[in-house]
This record gives sequence, structure tokens and C-alpha cells, in this order.
Amino acid sequence: MEAINVGLLGCGTVGAGAAKLLLQNARVIQARLGAPLNLKYVADLDIETDRGIKFPDGVLTTDAQQVIQDPEVRIVAELIGGQTVAKDLIMQALDQGKHVVTANKALLAKHGNALLEKAASKNVVLAYEASVGGCMPIIKTMREALVANRVNAMSGILNGTCNYILSKITDEGSEYEGALAEAQTEGYAEADPTLDVEGLDTAHKLAILTALAYGVEINLDDIFVEGISKITPLDIEFANQFGYRIKLLAISKDRGDAVESRVHPTMIPFDNLLSSVNGTLNAITVSGDAVGDIQLNGHGAGMMPTASAVVADMVDIARDLLSGAKPRIPLLAFQPDRIRPARVLSMDELQTHYYFRFAAVDRPGVLSKISGILGKHGISLKSVHQKGRKSHGSVPLVMLTHHAREKDVKKALKEIVALDVVTTEPVLIRIEDKNNTDQG
Amino acid sequence: MEAINVGLLGCGTVGAGAAKLLLQNARVIQARLGAPLNLKYVADLDIETDRGIKFPDGVLTTDAQQVIQDPEVRIVAELIGGQTVAKDLIMQALDQGKHVVTANKALLAKHGNALLEKAASKNVVLAYEASVGGCMPIIKTMREALVANRVNAMSGILNGTCNYILSKITDEGSEYEGALAEAQTEGYAEADPTLDVEGLDTAHKLAILTALAYGVEINLDDIFVEGISKITPLDIEFANQFGYRIKLLAISKDRGDAVESRVHPTMIPFDNLLSSVNGTLNAITVSGDAVGDIQLNGHGAGMMPTASAVVADMVDIARDLLSGAKPRIPLLAFQPDRIRPARVLSMDELQTHYYFRFAAVDRPGVLSKISGILGKHGISLKSVHQKGRKSHGSVPLVMLTHHAREKDVKKALKEIVALDVVTTEPVLIRIEDKNNTDQG
Repeated sequence: MEAINVGLLGCGTVGAGAAKLLLQNARVIQARLGAPLNLKYVADLDIETDRGIKFPDGVLTTDAQQVIQDPEVRIVAELIGGQTVAKDLIMQALDQGKHVVTANKALLAKHGNALLEKAASKNVVLAYEASVGGCMPIIKTMREALVANRVNAMSGILNGTCNYILSKITDEGSEYEGALAEAQTEGYAEADPTLDVEGLDTAHKLAILTALAYGVEINLDDIFVEGISKITPLDIEFANQFGYRIKLLAISKDRGDAVESRVHPTMIPFDNLLSSVNGTLNAITVSGDAVGDIQLNGHGAGMMPTASAVVADMVDIARDLLSGAKPRIPLLAFQPDRIRPARVLSMDELQTHYYFRFAAVDRPGVLSKISGILGKHGISLKSVHQKGRKSHGSVPLVMLTHHAREKDVKKALKEIVALDVVTTEPVLIRIEDKNNTDQG
Repeated sequence: MEAINVGLLGCGTVGAGAAKLLLQNARVIQARLGAPLNLKYVADLDIETDRGIKFPDGVLTTDAQQVIQDPEVRIVAELIGGQTVAKDLIMQALDQGKHVVTANKALLAKHGNALLEKAASKNVVLAYEASVGGCMPIIKTMREALVANRVNAMSGILNGTCNYILSKITDEGSEYEGALAEAQTEGYAEADPTLDVEGLDTAHKLAILTALAYGVEINLDDIFVEGISKITPLDIEFANQFGYRIKLLAISKDRGDAVESRVHPTMIPFDNLLSSVNGTLNAITVSGDAVGDIQLNGHGAGMMPTASAVVADMVDIARDLLSGAKPRIPLLAFQPDRIRPARVLSMDELQTHYYFRFAAVDRPGVLSKISGILGKHGISLKSVHQKGRKSHGSVPLVMLTHHAREKDVKKALKEIVALDVVTTEPVLIRIEDKNNTDQG
């Protein structure tokens, strides 16, 4: 049967992984697809470095245009990353009528609409399974497996770097800085880890998933993002005592007239399966009206897991080509004319449970002052814990609230921090319990 | 856009669920598909019972042939169950050129080849996502998401009834009989629970997954099956002390010249995510050479979760119809000419870790006799635990082995049970540790 020729743009970690997989597993891929998926080109500015891959003659090229312009190439995978060259090359490939596969979540989150419109106008596929959750087929699950469901909510651990660091702090009581340094040594964190640890990478992925889940168009900038750099072993230990783990979660919920879409460290109870997902693993739970909760977990990054998703996208496209299908699945899960712009709920409007930790002077009356302010703002307490340990001349005072409005919480904390008995900025961590997932 | 007409055969739990979903979520399904998925018929011998569904006029019929013979119906879902009428109707529908969706795992496990050959010969799709794992898209994951991987192994909790019963025994220390009775009261177990609790339902699902994973054809009857009816709170408590949970697992591994494919109660360590999957939930972990481990979990049965998978299959087919595609994906994941018959490894050849519990007379020398026999058969012990509690005049003597061959284990146990100091049949539970998953 006719071979389907593919070309890769970029031979970094994911590009090299995809090349390796296409070459090493060519036989099993063909046994499933029914035709060879032939790696015709790998374009990279650096074709000298030995990547431990035996490329057939003529495959390596420094010229991306050779890939894009070759009429024999049906599928182009953009695995360069970044938002300038990558965007231009994707646009050019689409213009040439190529189907495109990408793992570039930042690009999709920021310029997805332009790219998707171009793909639709050229009647080709722009596939992006590898952009979210590495090897976990979350895009496929959302667009295909859950097609009969109204999706109500989802929450996920979508960044392996953050999950590794939080797991380290949890398991070994390390401080954040030490855990980050170890993640860097292990190759799980970049030299500049900002994009990961400050939650931006997670927000990019959440923007894509939010669109797919509810058929909405939202602004990436409206997603609230708080990273993990302020998480301490002390808060993780308190969380543990109350039956929670702290995870960096991407959370989104359909609120009818708006959507929630937020990224922040979150306390989740032990019986939430996400709480058992540790190390660099990713996981996502999606709630649909028919399925209830469904969860995927697996390696959310890394050379071969990401490559697996890239090649799976290629095979999906190759199957269309071999069966004579036009693009079958709307790129953003819903037909373009059914996608509505949606407002992202502001954090002021959020209602959830909260964990507060105050560093307070160990003096009678402090608790009454603090709880008085909270009460004045309509925030009722579920429990209060005053722990003996002194740190810097103050004691940690920990409070868990019932359902409260973030707007009220902010106001109250502002008043509390002005008290002379409170010595440092309070710690606020949001709690996601089953009951507040359900009620909102 | 043209509507795609579908007909359901059978309006029991899953059939009624599928009808309900097609009617209630018609709008969201159309928003994704781009055309109405129109429920034209629901055929059932009983159309009098009120199922709480408002069927449009003319949809209900007692005549399955009306559905099968109607040229306007493009997709027929067989949701009757059983292996006689269901098989005939599927064959007739395929003969009429209908695409067929089924949730009937027993039928597929036993007569899958004949059905799939018929579908292939008529160039139509026979889809069966709902037959394994309810709403978990495991068939889709295996056939599509993992297409670039060599699958090495998988293990899964594929029967909600068994998982519910084992979770009850674990959490509440109930005896098996009490837990089963409770499962029956809750509607999680049939009046005759044999198919579930003896592991046969799990074996049916494992047969399908084994074929998909490795591209092999195996005999259902070659799958070793042991149910959960002999599991006691005592063994669950010991397991807990050693860091294990007991789950009814479906396990399969590619052994090159043969495949492992077995169903039995299994001890798995706490850090295996399957150990945290409780109640009626199902879960499956698949190991591929590129992805490492990937896991799905969700409701493996029940009206709406199963209906969700049925309708997702319909939408997949409808997308082919709307895009002009011929069937795109080989029904058993691999191209028919690449599927090889494979031998299922006999249990005698299995090598794994074992847990034994002997009821032994509390007398000096007993341990030496038993461990002597084990040693003679080349079975080396990792640990031995003699617990103080007397039960029926004997004490439980618990042993965990290193890697051992099942053939040797059987011989040794036969000799041990003949000892006059051993008062009852020994308990044997296989252990699945990460290290024996890897080496095997």
C-alpha cells in the first residue's frame, strides 16, 4: 500500500523522540496502519550533533522549506517550540495543504484561533494531542470518547516539574528551593523554571482543555495563575494532618453563563485519586453528565511519551488519507459555529473552602481578633488549629473555612494582616473537596 | 446537514441509557458531530414498561427486523446481551450493510472472529468500546492512542462487582458472603453473581484486550481464571501489613513466543495506582515501550457510563459516514494479515512472587518442615510471619516468596498439605510487584 510520507520540523527532545519512534517501531506502526508511515525528512539547524539515531540517507536537512514544499510530504510535525519560527512554519505548511501535528501548547494557547482557522480554510487537520498531558490521550478523550456528554468540570495535574517538586517536599520535607534544585539536577526542570513553577505552562494547557470541554472561546489572560514557589513543608504537613495533599491543579468548571478556569496550588483529600499521582506523572479527571468522573494518568512530558502522542496524531491523519476521509473531527471538539465566547469567572466571584496560616504573636486574644474579622466578612470557620511550634517568635495559627467567597476572603485578609499581632503575610491555599466540586 | 439514523436493539439498562442519552444530549452531540444523530427505533419485546423516557412517536417497536431492514438506518446498536438472539441479529444487521455497535463482551470473547470477519467482508464497522471498561475509552486508547507503541503488558480492574466486594472486605472487615449480599442489595451484583465473582466476565474482557494489545489470536479457554469467593478479611489484613491491597486483576504480558493472560486475586503494592481504585470503579494500566505506563479509570459499568461509550462509537461511525471514509481502523487494532495465533502461557510456566497462608498446628518444628519442603522445590522465602491468633486450634503461618515457578509451588503445596501439622488447604495469592512485572 502507498506509503504516507511525513516530515519533522525540529530535532530537539521531542523531535528526536518522534524520529526514533517512527524508525524503531516502523513495523508495528505499519502492522496497525496498513501502510508505511515513512519518515522522509527531519529538519533542524543542527544536523551535526549525534542524537544516537541512525537516520537513513537524505532524511536530515537544515532546510525547513524542503519539508514544507515537497509535494510528497503529506504530514508535517512542528516540534520546534516557541512562537515565532514555529508559527510561521505551521502557517506555511498549512498553506501548502499539509496536515500539521504540533506539541506546541504555548503557541496554541496564544495563537490557536489563527492557526485553526487557517487549517479549516485549507481543509486539513491541525492535530495537537502532544500539547497537553504528553502521552495521555486527553484531547482524543475530550473530542471523541466524551462526545455524548455535557462536560461539567475537570481538574488536572498537567505539569510534571511542579508535581515532582511538590512530591519531593511532601515525601522528604525538603524546602522548595532544594526540591527545585534537585528537579533541575534530574533534568525535570529547566535552568529558568519560571514557565513551569509559576503555573504558566499549566495555564496554556488549561486554556486548550477549557475550549474543548465546553465549546467556548476564552482569553488565556483571564485564567488566574498562581505557582508553587511559596509552598512550604509546613503547609504540606498541616495539609497531611487534615487529610489533604497539595497539588498544582488546573481546574475548570462550566458555570452556565461563565466558566471557571484557574491554576493554583490546591488541597485535595486523600480519596481523590489525583492525590496519589506523584513524581513527574500527570493526571486529569473529567466530569461528564453521563460518565461521572473519568481519569487518565501517565507521563505528561519526556521524549518518548510525547513522541508517542505525536506519532498517534500522524497515524490518525494517515488513516484519513488512506480511507479517503475529509477531516472528520472539528479541531476544537465543537463545530466552529457552535463555539461561543465565554467569560472566565473572576476570582472575586469564586466560592470555595480555604486554608489559612497566620504567623501570629502567641498572646491571648489573637484568635478572637482574627476570627472576629473573618466573621464580620461572612467567613465561617470549620476548624482552628494553634500549633505549639514557635517560628521567628510567632506561632502558626491554621484555619480551615466553610464555603466562602474569595472577594470576602481577600478583604478579611487585608484587615487581618494590618493587625499588629500578625507578623507576616498570611498563607492562603484553596481547597477542592468533593462537596465544593459538586456545588460550586 | 443530513441526519444519521440509528436504531437500538434491546431496551434494558444499557439500551434505555443509550436512548436517554441520544434524546437528552441530542443538542450537544449535534454541536460536536455537525449533524443530528437521530434515534429512529428502539426495539424490545417489552415496550409497555415505563422506563421514564419520553420516546417520540413511532420509535418503540417490538420488531427487531423493522430496525435491521430499514434502509434509512445506518447504525444499529445491539444491547440485548446473551449469545443467541444477539449474535443472529448482529449478523443480520451486518448482512444488511449496517454498521453495528455492541456492548456484548461475552459474545465478542466467544464469537468475535466470526462477527468481525462478517463486518470486514461487508466493509462496515463493528464497534465495541462499551464491551470493556464501561466509559473508559480503553479500546480507543489501545487502537489509536498507543498505535506507535509496542505494548508490553497490561493489568486492570475490569469488574466493578468484584472491586466493590473486595473494597467492602478491605474497609469494613466484612466476610465475603456479607459483602456479596450487600453488593446484591445495592444492585451491584446479580442474583446469580457467578459470572462476575468467579472472574469469567473479567476473562471475557481480558481476551478482547489481549488480542488488541499484541495483535494475537488466543483461546478464551486458555485464560486462567480464579475468582474472589475465597478471599478472607484475614488475608486482606495480612496483605495490608505487608503493604499490599488485594484486587481481582486481569493481567496480560507479551512474552514473545507466548502471551500471559490470567485473571486472579492479586496483591499489589500501595504505590501501584490500581491499589487506590476502590468501590465499583474500574481501572486499567497499559505499558508501552514509548509511553511507559498509562492508566485509565472510571465507571466500568452502569446505565449512563456504558451508554456514553455506545453513543461515542455511534458518533465515530457517523463521522466516517459524513466525511466519506471507508472504515478507517482495523477492528482488532492490527491489520487482519498481521494477526498471529498465540499460545497462552500455562500457569505452570508462570514465575512470580507468592503469598501463602497455612493453618498449622502451633508446635515446634512445623516451620522447619514447611520451609524445608519449599526449599527442596527451589522456592526461597522472603519473609515468614507466625501470628499469635489461634483459629480452630491452629495458627496462621504466613510466607512471602521470592520469584518462584508456579509448577514448583504447586508440587510443594501438595506435599505440605499432606503434613499432619497442616490442618486445612493452604491459601495462595499471587503478588504483582513492580520488579516482577518488569522481569517476569
